[in-house]
Amino acid sequence: MSKETFPHLEALREEMRRVNVDAVIIPGTDPHQSEYICDHWKFRDWISGFTGSNGTAVVTLDKAALWTDSRYFLQAGIELEDSGFVMMKENMGNDPTIHEWLSEVLEEDSVIAIDGRLYSALEANQLERFCGENGFMFVTEFYPADRIWTDRPARPSGPAYVHDVQYAGEEAADKIERLLKVLDDNEATAMLVTALDDIAWLLNLRGSDVDFTPVVTAFAYISHDTRVLFIDQDKVTDEVSAHLKACDVKVRDYDDIQHFLERVSDHEVVLVDPNRVSDTLSAALPCQKVYFRSPITDLKSIKNEVQIEGFRHAMERDGAALVRLFMWIEQMAPTGSINEVDVWNKGKELRARGDLYREDSFGMICGYKEHGAIVHYEATDESASTLHGEGILLVDSGGQYLDGTTDITRTITLGNPTAQEKHDFTLVLKGHLALQRAKFPVGTTGCQLDVLARLPLWQEAMTYGHGTGHGVGHFLCCHEGPQSVRTNLVDVKLMPGMITSNEPGLYKTGEYGIRTENLLLVVEADKTEEFGNFLTFEPLTLYPYDLELIDRSMLTGEEVAQINDYHRMVRERITSLLNADEAAWLAAKTREIN
Amino acid sequence: MSKETFPHLEALREEMRRVNVDAVIIPGTDPHQSEYICDHWKFRDWISGFTGSNGTAVVTLDKAALWTDSRYFLQAGIELEDSGFVMMKENMGNDPTIHEWLSEVLEEDSVIAIDGRLYSALEANQLERFCGENGFMFVTEFYPADRIWTDRPARPSGPAYVHDVQYAGEEAADKIERLLKVLDDNEATAMLVTALDDIAWLLNLRGSDVDFTPVVTAFAYISHDTRVLFIDQDKVTDEVSAHLKACDVKVRDYDDIQHFLERVSDHEVVLVDPNRVSDTLSAALPCQKVYFRSPITDLKSIKNEVQIEGFRHAMERDGAALVRLFMWIEQMAPTGSINEVDVWNKGKELRARGDLYREDSFGMICGYKEHGAIVHYEATDESASTLHGEGILLVDSGGQYLDGTTDITRTITLGNPTAQEKHDFTLVLKGHLALQRAKFPVGTTGCQLDVLARLPLWQEAMTYGHGTGHGVGHFLCCHEGPQSVRTNLVDVKLMPGMITSNEPGLYKTGEYGIRTENLLLVVEADKTEEFGNFLTFEPLTLYPYDLELIDRSMLTGEEVAQINDYHRMVRERITSLLNADEAAWLAAKTREIN
Repeated sequence: MSKETFPHLEALREEMRRVNVDAVIIPGTDPHQSEYICDHWKFRDWISGFTGSNGTAVVTLDKAALWTDSRYFLQAGIELEDSGFVMMKENMGNDPTIHEWLSEVLEEDSVIAIDGRLYSALEANQLERFCGENGFMFVTEFYPADRIWTDRPARPSGPAYVHDVQYAGEEAADKIERLLKVLDDNEATAMLVTALDDIAWLLNLRGSDVDFTPVVTAFAYISHDTRVLFIDQDKVTDEVSAHLKACDVKVRDYDDIQHFLERVSDHEVVLVDPNRVSDTLSAALPCQKVYFRSPITDLKSIKNEVQIEGFRHAMERDGAALVRLFMWIEQMAPTGSINEVDVWNKGKELRARGDLYREDSFGMICGYKEHGAIVHYEATDESASTLHGEGILLVDSGGQYLDGTTDITRTITLGNPTAQEKHDFTLVLKGHLALQRAKFPVGTTGCQLDVLARLPLWQEAMTYGHGTGHGVGHFLCCHEGPQSVRTNLVDVKLMPGMITSNEPGLYKTGEYGIRTENLLLVVEADKTEEFGNFLTFEPLTLYPYDLELIDRSMLTGEEVAQINDYHRMVRERITSLLNADEAAWLAAKTREIN
Repeated sequence: MSKETFPHLEALREEMRRVNVDAVIIPGTDPHQSEYICDHWKFRDWISGFTGSNGTAVVTLDKAALWTDSRYFLQAGIELEDSGFVMMKENMGNDPTIHEWLSEVLEEDSVIAIDGRLYSALEANQLERFCGENGFMFVTEFYPADRIWTDRPARPSGPAYVHDVQYAGEEAADKIERLLKVLDDNEATAMLVTALDDIAWLLNLRGSDVDFTPVVTAFAYISHDTRVLFIDQDKVTDEVSAHLKACDVKVRDYDDIQHFLERVSDHEVVLVDPNRVSDTLSAALPCQKVYFRSPITDLKSIKNEVQIEGFRHAMERDGAALVRLFMWIEQMAPTGSINEVDVWNKGKELRARGDLYREDSFGMICGYKEHGAIVHYEATDESASTLHGEGILLVDSGGQYLDGTTDITRTITLGNPTAQEKHDFTLVLKGHLALQRAKFPVGTTGCQLDVLARLPLWQEAMTYGHGTGHGVGHFLCCHEGPQSVRTNLVDVKLMPGMITSNEPGLYKTGEYGIRTENLLLVVEADKTEEFGNFLTFEPLTLYPYDLELIDRSMLTGEEVAQINDYHRMVRERITSLLNADEAAWLAAKTREIN
């Protein structure tokens, strides 16, 4: 490969040589450690061509590699072709880790550089330790994007807006008080808030800076005396200004944050989430710091009654939109006139017809046949398959509504399902149902329950490579912590008011993918004297499972009753939003089985 | 309460005053952090009267309290009566922790003392930090037992003996080589081995110093150049001496260990398990230390083929002994002439009739009716209930055989089971069966599987307060790490060759206890290209479940088949060890159900 082929890579190496850097690590994130980032921060995409949500580029003066996880192996394989980068598979045992690779390709005393604004304090610390142990120099102030990325998109300038308390269920001023109380309890006097969804939740503010997540780019600093929001001034409308004034929050420019932090009084004790606050901003603080998971992460994971009612209503409208979408797919597929991208567009259009819709909550995954086996497949005009009246279709989609965020996956047959398809679908469904009906003692973590969704697959020596469940924000991030349902041992207890997805799947490369996903609300179940108190799940998502794909012989009576109960609820909750044709179609789709 | 009532406590306080100690913490362990300890180290028992396996006494100049867990609340309540000690319940939310209690009852600058030989390095470190944070002084060289315990039992003097390689399956010299290799990998040059079962496994040595576990009291120091066993000289028979010489291990006196460690070269890097090595011995080392879980713990958790075959044979003899025991119980109970202690004695006698039996692997838990609800009930002549021809009997027992260690719980009806008893028994059995038939991917931990054993109970808002499974040693500790099947998030993967118990239970205070326990061997199941490799369990334990207690209507066809398959295996494996009557009895107990 000659250097001429990769002008971006060559420009970066030029810059590296200029400042004596031997290796640079470029993560795919922004100064807020966001999952979805705006184009302004997509330097890793620009340098490597890889556009997936998880990937880290590492460039030396003569080598370049990109690490990503199993969801993206296929996509990265395509996008990195002729990029000058080789793909490295994370957690697969064969490929080296970034650390291993760097130790191998670099000589002692080499200089490893990062842009410390894009690295969490914890990650930067780990990297520094690695460098120390291996005799490398470590530099955190290397900003190549600012110099070589000539056509770099500007930061988004859309306005912020207030998320009305009729949806949020709690005034921003009250949330700030609750936060200050938690800071007191942790012997901190202030908190530096950098996660965009933390800020949005805390201040009941929203924006449109990032696709799929209605957040606004900002930092916040909260103490008993001082409440400051750092935000581009043109985002602050009169409404936002009045709202912030009402909760005693001052406004300063987004770029003032570092300067401000450098001048924080050394009497303060600032709570810093080492996973969310950047190394640069953490280092700017001259005072004592306490390192904790952002307490806002925990506060916002417990939904209040207004938010929960909002979710329920949003799910009804979402379900009605899905009835229309799947009716349309069922009509159109046999004609061979629609493809995967058309489904995505139609879904957006149908959701948008409902009240309070703002945007989709993520890019629809619409995978027909073998595309369904690509876990994070995103159809493009080039890749889109045309649907026909047979085969398996997987549709994972969701909406951002003012009163809630939805995320649902359904897998349907477009005709003539095979016994194997039904067998696989039913296995996945059995796991999904088992998790959904689980009752568990207070204190149980998601990782303890994960096996319930996997076991039917495990018993046949199959599994899926992704988590079973993630938290979901309220008109915020579709993926939200701290709770999860995964094989990873994450010590976060499920608590009433938390939401988790329930999405086991099965992916047969070259054949089809199956996933069935509902959002579940953690609710109280039994209170007992002798055995303590128990929790269970209320399914929030309202849309039927495809009865045509069920192998009845694999289900227990309990499972059949569970499906019938769920389908009855779906029918009762969304029929009033449908016209007569749609209602009749739904009635058939939710007919009782026995 | 006047001080005259508690002479031991008063003697201790006298000693505390003499050396200016304000509070002393007395754990229930020995210098090897053993689970079962010899009488020489039972100072906590002597001072408090409490004899349970888990309990920590804390004494100040005017207060005394003892912390224990839920297994022992009942027993401690009785034993601590008129002891001068109040019981504190661990992990129950209401009672203070030891730290909280000390902070409350002591004034600043108080002196807290321990015997550092009885505290692991980690525990002592935590205690030291606690003292530092609370303005207490911390002393680790307070040895009241040596001064005030006038009738203290001597250290046991029974001889050590060699565990033949025909049972151990690997020569001690080869084990030492494997250990040295692990030390190399962890950049250590030596290891201080203090856990008695680690030493027993490593050197193929056994002894009779401790009830229920055939270990010998010793320390070991292993490096490439130096291999020393610290042991009372009178334990070293000619056989042992020759064996140790053959694997190049020198012998020094047990009490020489500290002196020896203080003179270790400062070129050495000694691996110290901070959970197992005492603070005193860890502190004695003048060289660099690396803190790791004892690699021997991991090495010995994977049983070799000879050990596994040994377990299988030991289980056959154990099952035959249990057939005789339960036949006898069934005959005798209706006559009202035997009690719980008689069952214990009969069990010992019947196991002892089989080959290779050495002793029981723990004190039998034989709990009739409400006694069964006391999780770690140990019948005494005073407490023992007389058995009759009705009600539930729980028997948890095991044997130490040269070729394996057994641990089995069965719950049976002595006649006329109620619907409730059958319902509860079947719930527990369903969980037990679910764990036993689970298939799971390589990399799965026990805590991920724990829910399988609990779920049937959880679904009815019930649970049990103990773990589901513990590792088991080979002719060693009945409880062995590092793996476990518990709700606690313990990140130890289950690997082929590991053994775990499978013992869900249900305890209804004042009514009865139910527990069903088999030992399971982790074995390879399927190897797949697409989904990786899977493991499953082979039940090692061979004894039928009580069919009279099963509510057939609660079982799936899969569960019924699983029971029938298991019962067929039990019959096939142990019938040849039985006489005609016993064989006929077993055939009836293992009859096929449908």
